[in-house]
Amino acid sequence: MPANEFTLIARYFSAYGRGAAVELGVGDDCAILALAPHERLATSVDTVVAGRHFPEESLPEDVGFRAVAAAASDLAGMGARPLGMTLALTLPEADELWLHSFSQGVAAAAVALELPLVGGDTTRGPLTISVQVLGALPAGKALLRSGAQVGDGVYVSGTLGDAGGGLAILEGRYQPEPEAAEYLERRFFRPLPPLALGALLLDTASAAIDISDGLLADAGHIAAASGVRIEIDRECLPLSAALQAHPDREQALAWALSAGDDYELCFCLPEGSAVPRGCTRVGAVLAGAGVVCAGAEGLVRGYQHF
Amino acid sequence: MPANEFTLIARYFSAYGRGAAVELGVGDDCAILALAPHERLATSVDTVVAGRHFPEESLPEDVGFRAVAAAASDLAGMGARPLGMTLALTLPEADELWLHSFSQGVAAAAVALELPLVGGDTTRGPLTISVQVLGALPAGKALLRSGAQVGDGVYVSGTLGDAGGGLAILEGRYQPEPEAAEYLERRFFRPLPPLALGALLLDTASAAIDISDGLLADAGHIAAASGVRIEIDRECLPLSAALQAHPDREQALAWALSAGDDYELCFCLPEGSAVPRGCTRVGAVLAGAGVVCAGAEGLVRGYQHF
Repeated sequence: MPANEFTLIARYFSAYGRGAAVELGVGDDCAILALAPHERLATSVDTVVAGRHFPEESLPEDVGFRAVAAAASDLAGMGARPLGMTLALTLPEADELWLHSFSQGVAAAAVALELPLVGGDTTRGPLTISVQVLGALPAGKALLRSGAQVGDGVYVSGTLGDAGGGLAILEGRYQPEPEAAEYLERRFFRPLPPLALGALLLDTASAAIDISDGLLADAGHIAAASGVRIEIDRECLPLSAALQAHPDREQALAWALSAGDDYELCFCLPEGSAVPRGCTRVGAVLAGAGVVCAGAEGLVRGYQHF
Repeated sequence: MPANEFTLIARYFSAYGRGAAVELGVGDDCAILALAPHERLATSVDTVVAGRHFPEESLPEDVGFRAVAAAASDLAGMGARPLGMTLALTLPEADELWLHSFSQGVAAAAVALELPLVGGDTTRGPLTISVQVLGALPAGKALLRSGAQVGDGVYVSGTLGDAGGGLAILEGRYQPEPEAAEYLERRFFRPLPPLALGALLLDTASAAIDISDGLLADAGHIAAASGVRIEIDRECLPLSAALQAHPDREQALAWALSAGDDYELCFCLPEGSAVPRGCTRVGAVLAGAGVVCAGAEGLVRGYQHF
């Protein structure tokens, strides 16, 4: 990278590059990260594009936070311990104000999710943000999509549909009370994937996935990978107080089932397992294929980029 | 990722995802890679943007190969053993023909550089390609920029300036004989970073960097990180037969010093070290600061993205 890119990256991001696993951060050809003996590396990459993954008028700080959280969500879905991340940033111009605000959001997420920024590349072009997350998994353990067994219960963490409600507010399709609006917008812009829960589930869950495309779509990935049928009970979906206040319950449930962007976990537990705090049973694993949810037959499943 | 993205990625890329270190490839929330005991992870990310890092009319196959090679070059510059890579691809539209050709280039580079593709994200937007490379380093060893000592010799691998010549041909600024043209264009589109040499240098080199921005700029990074002055002797620069045939020797030397994109290595060896095959001494490490090269005072150093 040329000097000016180094300067940009060093000025805005290098302060968030310290972490227990970081032997060498930004500044050389590669970063160096240390795993514990017997750990394996878990990695994933997530790209967000302006106007497609977030409203164009979003605050750069929120864009930065959300890009990191969306990528970190894949570590939670795998049960991996966060080690660090790299950032590939394509920017239309070297806008100092934008970069400053964006870096604040990246920094806040780096701290909240324990993901020090260890490397990056800054190039000029249409705004595109790629975050690569690096995590560690104990030998022989991982939360795969493929292990669900007939008879397991299906669970989700947190509450669902909040990000869908938040996006509806941002797009002018929904106007709740100010307090609910603030909560839902925050859930859209500042998701906090449950990394600790993912690690906890390594010993108990038969299958897991992070909920990025919506419960129906993501449960569908578990069903397909495990060769089972998943039945979701609409009446069991955990809704936040803000979403329960929605005058149209059907709309709230639709967001919970298919809006995506919640970055919670969907996982399967054998009958009789202890249910982690803050998690809710929403369905069951049956013999067969696909995902069924009575009353939700008409919902689009998952966001189609192409 | 929605189903259609999975389909795209699975169809075109999953065949190039096998490798000794790959425990789990494309298809779950994360890929899983195994390092040997006591190895550390080396990682870097490199983004290329259409029209900025390659001519818009480039063959997609060449674009794919070169994007991987440019990222892999950072592993060579660190002395890391290649483990795998992930690819974040932003595409204007789901163009099957483009994607097919692009994937052929990615596959060729994956095989040539032993970098199985273990994960990816495909989004819609202006063409942007980010490649994250993952490598392994033995405990306590790495080729840093910061270790050059006064008295060391400065060396480069291969020949320099070929990519600069290739780009000049593509942009219509240079018309050599067909054989030379073919060679130089190939050096631009199909660079092969010397990964084995990087690993070999772990035991001997005091400092190293990959040459992506041009020798003067990249040697400047070693000088700055090591707190030394580097003197380059223009007359020692290794030029290919194709470049030696250039009627204007000054132009050929200018490409060798500052055009970049060669993806060779620049490294420092203590006096008396054995010089690896195919490498050439081009200068010396002195007390002081900066890079000097008699006769090259006017050259722009490194490509400025902003």
